[in-house]
Formats: sequence, structure tokens, C-alpha cells
Amino acid sequence: MKVSARNAFAGIVASVHSGAVNAEVGVELPSGDKLVAVITVESVRSLQLTPGKPVVALIKAPWVMLMTDGSDIRLSARNCLAGKVTTVNAGAVNAEVVVTLPGGTEVVAIVTKDAVTELGLVPGVAATAVIKASSVILGVRT
Amino acid sequence: MKVSARNAFAGIVASVHSGAVNAEVGVELPSGDKLVAVITVESVRSLQLTPGKPVVALIKAPWVMLMTDGSDIRLSARNCLAGKVTTVNAGAVNAEVVVTLPGGTEVVAIVTKDAVTELGLVPGVAATAVIKASSVILGVRT
Amino acid sequence: MKVSARNAFAGIVASVHSGAVNAEVGVELPSGDKLVAVITVESVRSLQLTPGKPVVALIKAPWVMLMTDGSDIRLSARNCLAGKVTTVNAGAVNAEVVVTLPGGTEVVAIVTKDAVTELGLVPGVAATAVIKASSVILGVRT
Repeated sequence: MKVSARNAFAGIVASVHSGAVNAEVGVELPSGDKLVAVITVESVRSLQLTPGKPVVALIKAPWVMLMTDGSDIRLSARNCLAGKVTTVNAGAVNAEVVVTLPGGTEVVAIVTKDAVTELGLVPGVAATAVIKASSVILGVRT
Repeated sequence: MKVSARNAFAGIVASVHSGAVNAEVGVELPSGDKLVAVITVESVRSLQLTPGKPVVALIKAPWVMLMTDGSDIRLSARNCLAGKVTTVNAGAVNAEVVVTLPGGTEVVAIVTKDAVTELGLVPGVAATAVIKASSVILGVRT
Repeated sequence: MKVSARNAFAGIVASVHSGAVNAEVGVELPSGDKLVAVITVESVRSLQLTPGKPVVALIKAPWVMLMTDGSDIRLSARNCLAGKVTTVNAGAVNAEVVVTLPGGTEVVAIVTKDAVTELGLVPGVAATAVIKASSVILGVRT
């Protein structure tokens, strides 16, 4: 498999909580970090997701929001990964920003160039990558 | 807090309707406009979202779709904010378009450059910013 | 109606499965392909979506992930449309890639330029467009 998604995190299903349409799936990464994904119940069934199953969590870079100085706010987004900016690659409108987590995992975000300026995103700056659970796609190797 | 999201609207929780996994949260803006967010029930609990609570609705610019001449269609997207284009900043592939609402609120959208041409998006043109409820992140100041 | 979304697929509602907050709506395209959308139950009600109703499925290009050599993985994303790359238009950070399905339908994706290189996305290459059900907006003409 090769996917265009800049973020692919291998992990293990830790929990599955199903509703009528959607299910919330907790994924534990080797680093000990946890991700939460909201996918359809039908996908839980067809991928046979149960605790202990290895999965890959895929997240496109434009679905990642970045936050700095985050201590004064709490977000509904279930995935908030704190790290440091390691790369900034700016285009005309957008910029690709890499945030490296303490364990070495790299999270790639596409944000506007304006956001890079406003937040002062340069290598070395502390930043949190914020990802809604509904933005996470889970994959199972067959 | 500083976030990369180009859209941050302060408002007040107006309603919370919870299911098994997700909840629908209505937010009233000072302008009287209403936004709807779908977030997980767990987030409603951890942020203690109840009617009357001040929140910030965060929406990344690429999650905003733009529509013109919209009178002949109704969309499933719960947030349709009608205004006028005030700025267009085009890159090689994408363009950043600002739609200003009657109350003065600015909504920033990233759309393709092709879309800008096809829809004739130039300052002064009437346009509606369309945002799915599931694209809205809510934040609470602590 | 004119929308900035690069992908607008006309189809017919095939199924509606409602939960407390969200509903899963199956849409059959003229090609026989099926799309799944997750929208709020309130939208199902207000758009009066029932099997047989004509709808338009709208999907912004940045919400489309691309996959190649996909046979060794199964994804939670409900919409996986296999075709061939027909156009690649690269910017500084992002690239617009068109995947044409066997029936002739074009799916437009915005992915990073790095992904284009890594996946070897050039015209003629087989690729699958992957779209989460929660990324699909449904529209009904009035």
C-alpha cells in the first residue's frame, strides 16, 4: 500500500464503542500515545476491528490544525499531539509544517502561509497538532 | 491560544443533543447567526458543554466550500453562511477566498484556482460559505 | 447552483440508516458505483431524503486521499473509487490530481507534491480515490 496521506501511524486497537451509525475506535501507538477515530459501524464490522488488532491510522495533512500556547484552551478535537516544529515549507497560499513528537513521530500539517506567520511557526517552536476523530481513516493489512 | 485555523468564531452553546458516539452542538454567534457542530459525546462531557457556555468554533479554511447562485439547491451541510467575497488570493493550485457576512464576520475558504474562475469569485460577488457540522472543532477557554 | 467543490456526482438515494445524531445515506450513481455519506439526521429530515430521491454528492478535492497498490490493505473509508490518473497539476506545496473511473467519471484530489512523487502519480497509473463518508455533502435541487 502507498497512500497520499502524509500521516500514517501504525498502532493497535485499544477500544471500540459503537453507536447506531458511527463507532469510536481508540488506537494505541507504540510510543504510548493514543489516537481516537470515528468511523462507521459498518467499517468496524467489515474490518473486524476488535481490541488488539493492528491498524494504520491515516490522516491527510490538510486535516491537521496547529495550535501554539495552548494551555489556556481545551478543544473538542480528540487528538492533540504536542511536539516541536521541525520543518516549514511555504508555497504561495499554503505551507507544509512538520511537528515532531517527543517519541520522534512526525506529524505533517498543511496550514495557510498566513497561519505560519501569525503563529510564528519556525523550527524549534513548540506546537500541538490537533486532529478531529472524524478525520482519521483506519486501515487493516490483509 | 493561537491556532492555525483561519476561522475562529466566539459564541455561546445554544443546544446539545447527544447520541451514543456523537453529539450535535448548536452555537449562537453574537451576530445572531447559528453554527452546528458534531463532536463526540466524550468531548461534550470533558468540556462540560451545556447551554449558555461560551465556546470558540474553529474551522480550517480548506473545510469551507463556496457556493454561488445557491437558490436552486438545498445542502445537507448544516452551516451555510451567506455573504460577499471581499478578497481573493490565488496560488498555483489553490486560492484563499474571504467571504464577509452581513454582520462583518469574515469566513476564510481555501478552494482550487479552477473553482475561483468557474464561479467568478471576485470581490463584490455574493457567495455562501458551506461548512459541514462534522468539520467544526469547539474550544473552551480554561 | 455553482459550487467550489471539484467533485459533484449526481445519483439517487439508495438507502437511509438513521441513528440519534447522524445518518448513513447510500447513493447510487448512474455508473452503478455507490457512495456512502454520513450526514446529520436533521439534514435527512429537512432534505426529505428517502430511497429514490435524486441527490448530488459534493466532495471537496482536499478531502480525497489517493492510494496505489491497494490490494494489501482495507480501509475504514467507505468510498474507494478505483481508476487511472489522467492529469497532474503541481503547485509549490500541493498538486491537483485527476483520477478517471472506468465509467468516465473524474475524481479530483488535492494531495501534497511529495505524495505525487512518492506514489509515482503520473497519467496512466492506476490509483484509488478514497473518501470518508463523513466528508460527503448531499444536495437536493429545489
